[in-house]
Amino acid sequence: MSIVVQKFGGTSVADAAKIRKAAGRAIDAVKSGKQVVVVASARGKQTDQLVADALELNPNPPRREMDMLLSTGEQQTVSLMAMALEHMGYPAISFTGTQIEMLTDAAHSRARIQSIGVEKIHKQLDRGRIVIVAGFQGMDEDGNITTLGRGGSDTSAVALAAALKAEACEIYTDVDGIYTTDPRKFPNAVKIDMISYDEMLELASLGAGVMHGRAIEFGKKYNVTIHVRSSMEEKQGTLITHEVPQMEGILVSGATIQNDLAKVGLLGVDNKPGSAAKIFAHLAASQVIVNDIIQVEISEEKANLSFTTEKAHLQDAIKAIEEIKEEVHCQSVFVREDISEVSIVGVGMRSHSGVAETMFKTLADKKVNVDSITTSEIRISVIVDLDQGQEALVALCEAFELDKPEDERNNK
Amino acid sequence: MSIVVQKFGGTSVADAAKIRKAAGRAIDAVKSGKQVVVVASARGKQTDQLVADALELNPNPPRREMDMLLSTGEQQTVSLMAMALEHMGYPAISFTGTQIEMLTDAAHSRARIQSIGVEKIHKQLDRGRIVIVAGFQGMDEDGNITTLGRGGSDTSAVALAAALKAEACEIYTDVDGIYTTDPRKFPNAVKIDMISYDEMLELASLGAGVMHGRAIEFGKKYNVTIHVRSSMEEKQGTLITHEVPQMEGILVSGATIQNDLAKVGLLGVDNKPGSAAKIFAHLAASQVIVNDIIQVEISEEKANLSFTTEKAHLQDAIKAIEEIKEEVHCQSVFVREDISEVSIVGVGMRSHSGVAETMFKTLADKKVNVDSITTSEIRISVIVDLDQGQEALVALCEAFELDKPEDERNNK
Repeated sequence: MSIVVQKFGGTSVADAAKIRKAAGRAIDAVKSGKQVVVVASARGKQTDQLVADALELNPNPPRREMDMLLSTGEQQTVSLMAMALEHMGYPAISFTGTQIEMLTDAAHSRARIQSIGVEKIHKQLDRGRIVIVAGFQGMDEDGNITTLGRGGSDTSAVALAAALKAEACEIYTDVDGIYTTDPRKFPNAVKIDMISYDEMLELASLGAGVMHGRAIEFGKKYNVTIHVRSSMEEKQGTLITHEVPQMEGILVSGATIQNDLAKVGLLGVDNKPGSAAKIFAHLAASQVIVNDIIQVEISEEKANLSFTTEKAHLQDAIKAIEEIKEEVHCQSVFVREDISEVSIVGVGMRSHSGVAETMFKTLADKKVNVDSITTSEIRISVIVDLDQGQEALVALCEAFELDKPEDERNNK
Repeated sequence: MSIVVQKFGGTSVADAAKIRKAAGRAIDAVKSGKQVVVVASARGKQTDQLVADALELNPNPPRREMDMLLSTGEQQTVSLMAMALEHMGYPAISFTGTQIEMLTDAAHSRARIQSIGVEKIHKQLDRGRIVIVAGFQGMDEDGNITTLGRGGSDTSAVALAAALKAEACEIYTDVDGIYTTDPRKFPNAVKIDMISYDEMLELASLGAGVMHGRAIEFGKKYNVTIHVRSSMEEKQGTLITHEVPQMEGILVSGATIQNDLAKVGLLGVDNKPGSAAKIFAHLAASQVIVNDIIQVEISEEKANLSFTTEKAHLQDAIKAIEEIKEEVHCQSVFVREDISEVSIVGVGMRSHSGVAETMFKTLADKKVNVDSITTSEIRISVIVDLDQGQEALVALCEAFELDKPEDERNNK
């Protein structure tokens, strides 16, 4: 009997009616002959309330205790959903992360899954029950409750699907799938039917919400097909899967724009091994998350180095750079906040040339001023002036036909 | 280093200010050189809210899932209290029932404690931490979360005190101790300084709130001194302890009145072995809790049998009796709802005669009509007319000087 894992986020279980609706999804899968494991998040604003309760008692609560507190949110949802299913005539049983031995490291609030004890789940599935597992949480080897950090329930679901060798992992959410770009920025964006893990990872790292990178990494590592779909509608969403030949025909799968970035430049840094390492180690130690990095040699002795970071981290970044700049003999520092990063992503770039050419020609035709360019194997990003970002995104979406379903595009 | 267990009920941890106040109690004990284990209940109305959430999804929720749900209330309190203590400068760590291996049977919603893994607690105490344990909850041998039923957190606290060989178990509550009788019924009631487990068990079974019988049984079995005291005031409360010689001097320690009882009589039942067993087995199967039972032989063939039960169970009791009455050849059934049960309790009765005499003379002087009498070794209860109950209670309190501290009474 094949197993399906269904994950419901906080908005999909926010109240009794929504819990019943989610339970109905699980029942539909049972009726179609599947064994069903449900992974659920905390109800709606429960987590926010608990965080507020904690901060009232301690502005800097110990992470272990915070995990202990927050994990109750998911525990409440899963027991309530089991009750709902029983009342709807379907036997169900709920489990905490501890109960199914979702073993993680001890990094409270951002723990990583190490192993899952699936025996208990299989036993209950074989008894004909729907199994409901609390997402977002695990336990370390000493039995302390841990949580997995942002997007943790997605990671729980994909990890469970991998461990149970499930045929699919369905992520129910308030959108109906992954779009070629954010429809609020480009209203003609279309839903993607199928996308590769690598593309989805790039899109996630470029701020396209919906799914967190770690869950996608898990899916890729264990080859779990992830189906992102609407909790409100029946229709198919987006499949995130390993690369299939037909994907290569599509040059660009999606585009993103990020307006919350700032660029920091260090001019005239020592051009010798270790300078960059010193700088970025110090930034990391200061909890600054650095996005793209560009380094350019300007002489045998000197180089210019720049990086982007979220504006929210900018003050910490500037402080960190001030602390390190003399050590690397940096001659001056500049900061740009009026930037937009526009990116295109597609595994098709691997086997097709001409994508960069089309991209730069499109931007040039629109007279968009390109500040800098970074690339990966399946991504090209440009930094442009903030007031030209939106125009650049729309132009690129049109150039790569992101307003058309994949099979109707010309540039295949 | 001696250990003290402190238990705080729901009203004592209802909000941030109260959690801080409870934390302050723990800190005071640490300052006085003790290792401290705190047992906490769910905050204020949290449990009621969770029950309402459950009933919205299932009017008859499975008990296992209910335990899973309700146990989150205590888990939230203990993590919040640990955060509060850390912020006040005292290292603390919280544990669920599962984490300290509070092993129970599998009787969900009314589980009984079988063993406690104290190693983890000792280890943390020896590291200088205050240990906060979620009350009311445990786990069965399959790792399912169980709850201990009404008064469960008291039981958790006393059981922990026993397992840790604590010098005392302090029960913090919203009253300042156990009173000779309910001060709302007899305003001159005085606080009892010291009372035996057996007396307290009788008082608890007679509806005198404050502590649940099972916690007292645990205290008796493992000889844990229980100190019931106010969470608001510093003064000494009531010590519940093993019998000490001075207690024998006190004829009557306390009095109770119960107005929520009904009496059911079965007239002309077969006077043969097994009749009563059949009747009470059927009542138990119908979930009717029976209090006192009186059986009187009226001939060689027939007996009259009566029992009291809470009015809330009366309809179920009547239904059960109707089902069984032909089998035991009961000739008629009567019900009285206009009754009061007034009781006096005291270990002094064991060694002193004359208590019953004083009681009945007092009631006769007041022209109180006594319907029936039941006794145990340390208790005498009378059923009287409902409208004479209050008068009877006051008369008995005065006769046995329950308005005076123990050492000022004449009838020692």
